[in-house]
Amino acid sequence: MTVKTIEVAADVLATNKRAAAAIRAELRARGILGVNLLSSPGSGKTTLLEALADRFRGRRRMAVIEGDIETERDAERVRAKGVPAWQITTGGACHLEAKMIGKVIGEVPAAIDFLFVENVGNLVCPAGYDLGEELRLVLLSAPEGDDKPAKYPQAFLSADALVLTKTDLLPYLPFDPDRAAAEARTIKPSLEVFRVSALRGAGVDGLADWLDAALARLRSGRA
Amino acid sequence: MTVKTIEVAADVLATNKRAAAAIRAELRARGILGVNLLSSPGSGKTTLLEALADRFRGRRRMAVIEGDIETERDAERVRAKGVPAWQITTGGACHLEAKMIGKVIGEVPAAIDFLFVENVGNLVCPAGYDLGEELRLVLLSAPEGDDKPAKYPQAFLSADALVLTKTDLLPYLPFDPDRAAAEARTIKPSLEVFRVSALRGAGVDGLADWLDAALARLRSGRA
Repeated sequence: MTVKTIEVAADVLATNKRAAAAIRAELRARGILGVNLLSSPGSGKTTLLEALADRFRGRRRMAVIEGDIETERDAERVRAKGVPAWQITTGGACHLEAKMIGKVIGEVPAAIDFLFVENVGNLVCPAGYDLGEELRLVLLSAPEGDDKPAKYPQAFLSADALVLTKTDLLPYLPFDPDRAAAEARTIKPSLEVFRVSALRGAGVDGLADWLDAALARLRSGRA
Repeated sequence: MTVKTIEVAADVLATNKRAAAAIRAELRARGILGVNLLSSPGSGKTTLLEALADRFRGRRRMAVIEGDIETERDAERVRAKGVPAWQITTGGACHLEAKMIGKVIGEVPAAIDFLFVENVGNLVCPAGYDLGEELRLVLLSAPEGDDKPAKYPQAFLSADALVLTKTDLLPYLPFDPDRAAAEARTIKPSLEVFRVSALRGAGVDGLADWLDAALARLRSGRA
C-alpha cells in the first residue's frame, strides 16, 4: 500500500514537472513573468493582487489565474480591477497542478507583463507543485502567527520571497515580524522579505519594484 | 493514471474508516469525548485549547493530541497548561489519519473527560479523514474573511460546530460574522456556531458548556 502510494505520487510529480517546464519555456519566450502565490486561506492573496493591479495600472499589464476549490469569487474581484482573470475550480483538490495552468495559458493575451497564479489557500500541498512560474511568493498574514515558517517549512523553502501581510493589524496582535522573517530565513536564507498592508496600500511599491526588476531581468535573458 | 490514483485514495479512506471506528468504540467504552479541531494555519486552535484548559481546570480533565508537519511547539504550549499532550509530526503529510491516533491512544490516561485532536493546519485535506472523534469543530478566524465557508465547503460540511475565533479583531476588519455563519449554515444547516476570543477569554464558556453537555450525552449512552 505504502509503496504503491509513493509510486503514484512520484509519477504525478514527474508528469507535473514536465508540464511546468513547458509552461515556463512558453512564458519566457513571450516575455511574461510568471508568479505563483502560496498561502493559508485568508492570508490576503486576492487583496494583494487587487493592490498590485492599482499600482501597475497604466504602466504594466497583468493577468491572473485563480485557483479555488469552489466559487468564482476571486476571479470576479480581480476582473473588477480591469484585470483579465481565469478561475480554476479544483472541485476538492488541495492544490493547482501545471496541467491545469496549461489548459488556460493559451487564452492569456500576448501583451501581458505579469501572469499571477493564485494557488488554492493551503500552506502545505501547493508547495510541492511547480506551476511553471519564474518566482514564487509565500504570504504570511500577521494574525496567523510568527511560528508558521517552522511549522510549514516546505512552503517557505520553495519560495523566492516572503510577503508579510495585514501589517495594519500589528498593534493588536502578539506577532513579531522580525521573528517571522528570521525563522523563514533560517529555512531559506536567500528569501526576500516584504511587509505589506494591501488594504492600506502600505509596502506594495517595494514589492512592485522587485517584480519590475525581475521582469527586466527575464526580458534581458538574465533570469 | 487517474484510475490508479482514485483506487489508491479509496483504499486509504476505507482503511482509515476502519481505524477510526475502532478508536471511536474505544473512546466511547472509556467514557471519553473525542473532539477533532480543523482549521487553516493560525486560526487559533492551540490558543482555544489553552483557553479551554483554563476553563476546565479542577472540573474536567482533558488531554490533547497535536498534529503538525514539523515542531513540538503546540504540544509544549498545551503541556504548560498542565494538560497531557502528544505531538504527532507528519513530516510533510497534510492531515492526520486515524492510524496515527491509534498509535498514541493507548498512552492516554484512563481518567480523562475530553480528548482533543488538533489537526494539521489545513482547511482542505483533514476534512476527508475521520479520526474516530465524536465531534468535529471547524475554526474560522475573523482575519481569514467571511467568504471561506463557500470556498472550502467540505470542512464546514463535515463539522458539528463552527467556532468563529479572534473576535477581538472585529473592529479592525472587513469581516461580517453573521455572513460567515449564514454561509456556513447554507452548507450545513445544523451547525452550532460559537464566537470566541480565546486571547481575551470571551465566549469560551458557551463552547465549554456545549462540550460538557455532549460528554453527558455520551456517558448516558445518548450520544
